[in-house]
Amino acid sequence: MLQSDSQKASPYAGWRRRLYLMLEPTARESPGLSITNCIISGLILLATALTVLETEPVVRALAPSLFVTAEAALALAFLVEYVARVIAAGEDPRYRGLAGRLRFMVSPWAIIDLLAILPFFLTMGAVNAFALRLLKLIRLLRLARLGRFSNAIGDLYLAVRGRRYELTVSLMVAVALLIVTSSVIYVLEASHQPEAFGSIPRALWWSVATLTTVGYGDVTPVTAAGQLFAGLTAIVGIGMIAMPTGILAAAFSDAMQKRREQAENDNSE
Amino acid sequence: MLQSDSQKASPYAGWRRRLYLMLEPTARESPGLSITNCIISGLILLATALTVLETEPVVRALAPSLFVTAEAALALAFLVEYVARVIAAGEDPRYRGLAGRLRFMVSPWAIIDLLAILPFFLTMGAVNAFALRLLKLIRLLRLARLGRFSNAIGDLYLAVRGRRYELTVSLMVAVALLIVTSSVIYVLEASHQPEAFGSIPRALWWSVATLTTVGYGDVTPVTAAGQLFAGLTAIVGIGMIAMPTGILAAAFSDAMQKRREQAENDNSE
Amino acid sequence: MLQSDSQKASPYAGWRRRLYLMLEPTARESPGLSITNCIISGLILLATALTVLETEPVVRALAPSLFVTAEAALALAFLVEYVARVIAAGEDPRYRGLAGRLRFMVSPWAIIDLLAILPFFLTMGAVNAFALRLLKLIRLLRLARLGRFSNAIGDLYLAVRGRRYELTVSLMVAVALLIVTSSVIYVLEASHQPEAFGSIPRALWWSVATLTTVGYGDVTPVTAAGQLFAGLTAIVGIGMIAMPTGILAAAFSDAMQKRREQAENDNSE
Amino acid sequence: MLQSDSQKASPYAGWRRRLYLMLEPTARESPGLSITNCIISGLILLATALTVLETEPVVRALAPSLFVTAEAALALAFLVEYVARVIAAGEDPRYRGLAGRLRFMVSPWAIIDLLAILPFFLTMGAVNAFALRLLKLIRLLRLARLGRFSNAIGDLYLAVRGRRYELTVSLMVAVALLIVTSSVIYVLEASHQPEAFGSIPRALWWSVATLTTVGYGDVTPVTAAGQLFAGLTAIVGIGMIAMPTGILAAAFSDAMQKRREQAENDNSE
Repeated sequence: MLQSDSQKASPYAGWRRRLYLMLEPTARESPGLSITNCIISGLILLATALTVLETEPVVRALAPSLFVTAEAALALAFLVEYVARVIAAGEDPRYRGLAGRLRFMVSPWAIIDLLAILPFFLTMGAVNAFALRLLKLIRLLRLARLGRFSNAIGDLYLAVRGRRYELTVSLMVAVALLIVTSSVIYVLEASHQPEAFGSIPRALWWSVATLTTVGYGDVTPVTAAGQLFAGLTAIVGIGMIAMPTGILAAAFSDAMQKRREQAENDNSE
Repeated sequence: MLQSDSQKASPYAGWRRRLYLMLEPTARESPGLSITNCIISGLILLATALTVLETEPVVRALAPSLFVTAEAALALAFLVEYVARVIAAGEDPRYRGLAGRLRFMVSPWAIIDLLAILPFFLTMGAVNAFALRLLKLIRLLRLARLGRFSNAIGDLYLAVRGRRYELTVSLMVAVALLIVTSSVIYVLEASHQPEAFGSIPRALWWSVATLTTVGYGDVTPVTAAGQLFAGLTAIVGIGMIAMPTGILAAAFSDAMQKRREQAENDNSE
Repeated sequence: MLQSDSQKASPYAGWRRRLYLMLEPTARESPGLSITNCIISGLILLATALTVLETEPVVRALAPSLFVTAEAALALAFLVEYVARVIAAGEDPRYRGLAGRLRFMVSPWAIIDLLAILPFFLTMGAVNAFALRLLKLIRLLRLARLGRFSNAIGDLYLAVRGRRYELTVSLMVAVALLIVTSSVIYVLEASHQPEAFGSIPRALWWSVATLTTVGYGDVTPVTAAGQLFAGLTAIVGIGMIAMPTGILAAAFSDAMQKRREQAENDNSE
Repeated sequence: MLQSDSQKASPYAGWRRRLYLMLEPTARESPGLSITNCIISGLILLATALTVLETEPVVRALAPSLFVTAEAALALAFLVEYVARVIAAGEDPRYRGLAGRLRFMVSPWAIIDLLAILPFFLTMGAVNAFALRLLKLIRLLRLARLGRFSNAIGDLYLAVRGRRYELTVSLMVAVALLIVTSSVIYVLEASHQPEAFGSIPRALWWSVATLTTVGYGDVTPVTAAGQLFAGLTAIVGIGMIAMPTGILAAAFSDAMQKRREQAENDNSE
């Protein structure tokens, strides 16, 4: 195989192959990340931390220019990385040639990569405060890029997928419970607290806080019948939490077990 | 069997058979729902969404006549469906003839079907606000009708039934804990907060919020002894949640496992 | 055996034997409770409900004399039951004769029986409101008497006992976490909120509410460092809940499994 | 072995050996703690209780001199214990001689022992209230010293270590969820509640309270979009709690199982 490859070997091809091995996590034979990907992961974490901290006026006031400069530098670094990934993609038979590169650019990971760079260039022209906040939010998509480097996302996906029927039933039960409990509390409390329980959608806010046992306490029933029903709802909420909790824990535990057994098989071979 | 059936075949009987296959989920040989039942399920979800949204004055103000018209159309559709189900029930040997149809009409699912239609015709005359809200609530019984189309309800029922002893014990422990903790906090806090802890039934409101870890925080003990006891109650509450959570999760997980094994057996046959 | 018993049979002995079979749950050969014990269980539940409701002024005002009369009747009934139990105890070889009866009267169940009757006669002389509330609380000990009639209490006891090491470790970890987190939040918040966080015992109130995820929200940290630490505490709290939850759920599930297997063995024999 | 030891036996060496057996838990052949270590454990618990109670002005006012005297006595006792441990360490081949003693003094347990004594002598000169509180906190490190006497800490450590991959993934998911949910709520609520949701770090306070289902309720979204998103967050929070709960419970359960089997093997040998 090496022979047939070396026939069309050129300085560019060799350079591209090295780039591909550096950037593509699945191309490496040894486990773990390449140094380049470790640095990129670090930059993503740094960029996320900066995006989060930048929104806080107190922090931004300490070094206003630092955040602008750092963001520009990071956006540039990610732009270079994106171009490098597009070039290196040619090593993959699926993405060879110009048409292949376009196919690569519309692949999910490449779109996330691009979306993570764009906001910087778009925010330059934005004036509206809400739009600015929204664009910063898109910047946090960079965090999703870490998923490419991690097996854990795949494990989680398989765990959830393997129990999709159970989880769907749990969600259906949860939605039905939310509608029923908010409807009953609406009937019982609407006259006394029209602001908080004056309609079923309004009562949903209380229902979701109670059934998930979050219990903010900003709105609570005041009538005896309402409080009695709220108590029953809270007890039923335990059951509602029980199902997805048990299912997810078991699913994730199984997925980890499989991964461990697979790893042992790989080692013994 | 087909032969003996075809002997008394008439245009009406053939039409009724097709109606029966269209409407009765258990009559189908292939898995999944018939197109008719898919449409009915969709209409039920739509009707539920409308009932929920209609209660919100802000939403109703956007299109006051829309909700009235839509509700009338849906009530009519469900009425037609109900009549069709009564006619089609004749295909089932149990519900043949006029006496059979009456037997069908008092079967649980048929009563739920009827209860889901009636409120529309009853609300026409209702004047009291509370009665109106209650009738709207009965309309939400339509949601229960979805249960007829789903295996999940059966799975859930079997899961809960298989552990009824454990769940009963959990509930007994929960009720005993609620009475004991509300009695103790009543002794400790009644003098300081007569409004919230002046009697055991009043103290129950705090007990249920604490033992279920909902923790609204609208009423909390203020004396040192009360707070010490509240802390112990909160820690005991973890144990109270532990039992039904573990039991329900295991029960549901087992039920799913059985269904999966059964499905595999069915496929291999 | 019947023969040797019948030798000393007298009208009194036969009457006592019937009383013993009526009152002692473990003496019955067939499963379930005797009619007498069913009635006693019902009276205990009724007495508990009355004790709970009586504390509520609104309810008591509806029928002030009813509660006094009912309580007197129930106290009399339980007194008769207690005397009957002491007489019937003679059927048990351990409690034969006068010395045996005294041994019976200091056995745990008999003490609980007595404690459940006494408050009525003591409340007659009590004048202090707090003492009255406390005596009513002792009346609720009657609820504990139901434990005598139930296998579930034994199951629960065995489940908890089988995992006592794990549960002790969990409790130790919980206590250590409570002390550490309340100490740290005390250091961080004492200057800003001396009322709520001015000492470690005061900060414990916040710690226990956060680590158990109850989250009343009546006291919350206000400094950035305090809120950061509170967030970490809340996340650690999930782990603290995880351990006893998992342990108790597994223990109870195992105990139920054993009971079921035992029941199957008993049936097959 | 005893013979070769007795060759260099001197009154001092015999005395040191007895000291070593008294103080070093791992040196004992029989299970359980020596009487000396039981007393030390008791003193540690007493010292912890005193440190906690001393911070409460109401309690300190009851007996101001008691706390100072008790703390001085305990500090002296722990100083004596520390010196005794350093002397006894010579019995361990690793810590023989002066160089060995220095190696012992920088071992983790010895450093904790020292840190637990120092604050008493440092607080003598401290004047700043915050520094004083911090030094008292270090005194609570004594609690960690109990870990030396307990197998449970080792069990817990092994349980957590055996599932470190799963727990790391759970933590990563939790951190990602915290960042994403606080960012979205920041976009939705920043304009309406700048104090509570004006930046992502500020919104984190709400996120952590909601995702852990603590739900203080001191800050809650007020816009319809914010409340809708908060409801979704609360439901997702159940899943976030599910994973570490299930993992930790299973890990701890496995670790206990292993210990039990090991104990049975030890007994049968």
